[in-house]
This record gives sequence, structure tokens and C-alpha cells, in this order.
Amino acid sequence: MNRLEKQISFIKEIEKLKTVKRQNSTLDNNRPENSAEHSWHLAMMAMLLMDSAKDENIDQLKVIKMLLVHDLVEIYAGDAFLFDEEERSEAHKKEETALIKLTSLLPEDQANEIEDLWMEFEQKKTEESKFADSLDALQPLLNHLQTAKENDNPHGIKIEQVYEKKKKILTNTPKLWDIAEDTIKKSEKRGLYS
Amino acid sequence: MNRLEKQISFIKEIEKLKTVKRQNSTLDNNRPENSAEHSWHLAMMAMLLMDSAKDENIDQLKVIKMLLVHDLVEIYAGDAFLFDEEERSEAHKKEETALIKLTSLLPEDQANEIEDLWMEFEQKKTEESKFADSLDALQPLLNHLQTAKENDNPHGIKIEQVYEKKKKILTNTPKLWDIAEDTIKKSEKRGLYS
Repeated sequence: MNRLEKQISFIKEIEKLKTVKRQNSTLDNNRPENSAEHSWHLAMMAMLLMDSAKDENIDQLKVIKMLLVHDLVEIYAGDAFLFDEEERSEAHKKEETALIKLTSLLPEDQANEIEDLWMEFEQKKTEESKFADSLDALQPLLNHLQTAKENDNPHGIKIEQVYEKKKKILTNTPKLWDIAEDTIKKSEKRGLYS
Repeated sequence: MNRLEKQISFIKEIEKLKTVKRQNSTLDNNRPENSAEHSWHLAMMAMLLMDSAKDENIDQLKVIKMLLVHDLVEIYAGDAFLFDEEERSEAHKKEETALIKLTSLLPEDQANEIEDLWMEFEQKKTEESKFADSLDALQPLLNHLQTAKENDNPHGIKIEQVYEKKKKILTNTPKLWDIAEDTIKKSEKRGLYS
């Protein structure tokens, strides 16, 4: 296959991300949110919330690309639920294997680019990846409060667990913490946590 | 509302794009593709297909942003089907009104940015907007061939209509024409056009 054919085969394969189901719902409320539309929402947030980043001079294009690709591994590895500790601990290795399988469809330079973006996001050492991670932590909070039915807490999630998972927003992107905390409190009032 | 509150109110409002249904389907085949996941797919294409642009030195970040926002107007205006000429001719005015309503939630500078991106995309005068438009024309071809059931042509679309709508790819992004044409021919063989 030539370069373009490889690119197109990858573009066809990632069609599958639209079938990867997340725990939260959409507003039409008859289906779970999927990882493709979630990734779009995050890229939009990166477009709009740059002035909340700890370092406003970070590379916006890199943040957006990182968010566009961060969930691609789920095409083969599935979405590991945030509050399922066992599933989460096994996720990374499985996801790395999934990534290599997926990027093998691409020309080598582009496979490397996507692998590098994904590794940077996973390691959360750079300011770009920390900001991207904060958006990825905030979006499900907003979405959950907006789409969940009152008193819907099928996994019995406690508010302390939520704070434990989300407090990294305070460390990495303090300007977004108030909105995160406010959303958590409103969600508790709505009966989404116990 | 302060700047961040305005941004968050917009981010919540655009959750609705996940409920805007398109004509094509997803691979799980029990639901129509929505405009949010379609926009994600286009942004991924802009990440990967830059070397097919007529001018490879165009601003990639602008192309990606343009594709992320190009369908936001559908939140209030709906998705106008490509082959419904009446609907299409009324779409632009309705979409412009929808855009102003939506961006009024944002701080003024960001409202302007999104309006400018959308207008640039609509006018298709710049190389960035022509390339973005080619991707927006190619993605539904790929998706349709991949997800439609054999001989499924509920609107009786003829292959000449498809060429008429898609030939702009040849003009604006000639390097992508072969793949577009090949996909159209395969779709005809599959009975998706008459």
C-alpha cells in the first residue's frame, strides 16, 4: 500500500471508536456516550479553555491532537471504568498493545507521532498532557450532571471516591477546580453519589 | 457571568451536538451517526492527510478548529441532507442565525473566533477551508460504503448526483480524488446508488 492508502485504512479502522461505549449518557438519553464524540467534546474544550491552563503558553495544537487520539486504544481494549480499580490496573498494558496494533496501519512517521502523543498523555509529565488530563477529568463531571437521571447511581459511587479521582485537577489546572468542585457538589445533591 | 462561566455554559450547550443525527450510520448499525463524532473523525483526517492538501503549508490548527466547529450550527438548525436541494438552499440563513444564538453564550473574542472560522469554512475561499471541505466531502463517502447495508438506497440517489456533489474534491484537493472516485464506484457496485 502507498502512503495515502495506509492513511485511509487507518481512517476507516478508527470508525470503530464511535461504537466504544462509555459509562455516561447523551442528552437524548437512550444511549451511552461513545469515545469518539467524547474526544470531540474534549478538543472543543481545549479550543476554549486555554486561558485556564497553568501555563497559557503551552502548545494548543499538541493538546488538541493528544485529546483526539487519547482514546483510540479503546477500539481494541475497551473503555476501563474510572471507578473499577481492577479493570484500571490492567488497562495500561492492554492499551499499549492495542495502540501498536492500530498504528501499524499507518506510515511509520505517523504511527510514531500518535504513539508519542499517547505516551505523553499517559505519563502526564508535560504541561500539555497535564492540561489535557484535567479536561478529560472535567468533561465527564459536566456531562454526568447534565445527562444522568436523578438519584441514578448504579455503581454506588461515593463522593469521596469522586474527590479522590478528580483532585488532580486542583494540582494540575487550579483555575478549573472551582467549576469541578461545584459540579461534584451539585451532582451529590442530585443523588448521583452517595 | 465571568469569562470561565461563559465558556462552561457554551461547553454544556454543545453537548447537544451529540444528538444531531446524520443520514449515515455507525458500524454498530443500530443508530445514525451524529455530528459530534463526525466532527471528531474529520479532525483526525486533518491530522493525518495534510500531505494531500494542495498547499501543504496551510495552517493545520486552523483546519482542525474549523472542522471541530463547522457543524455546531446544527444544534439549532439541524443537519440538512446533502441531496435535499430545497433543505440545502434554506440552510445557510437558518444556520447563521443558529450560530449567533450559540456563540452569544461565549466571551466576545471567542464568539468572534468561532464565527470567523465558520464563515471561512462556508465561503471556501482560503486553502484551509477548501481542504477542510474536501475532508467533509470524503468522510461520508468512506463511512457510507463501510456502514450501509447492501442495496440500501432509501432516497434513490443516482451516481451522477454523487459525482456532481463530490467533484469539488478533484478541484480543491486533487490528491484525494482517486480515493473518492474509487469509493463512489465501490458504493455503486454495492447497490448504494442507482
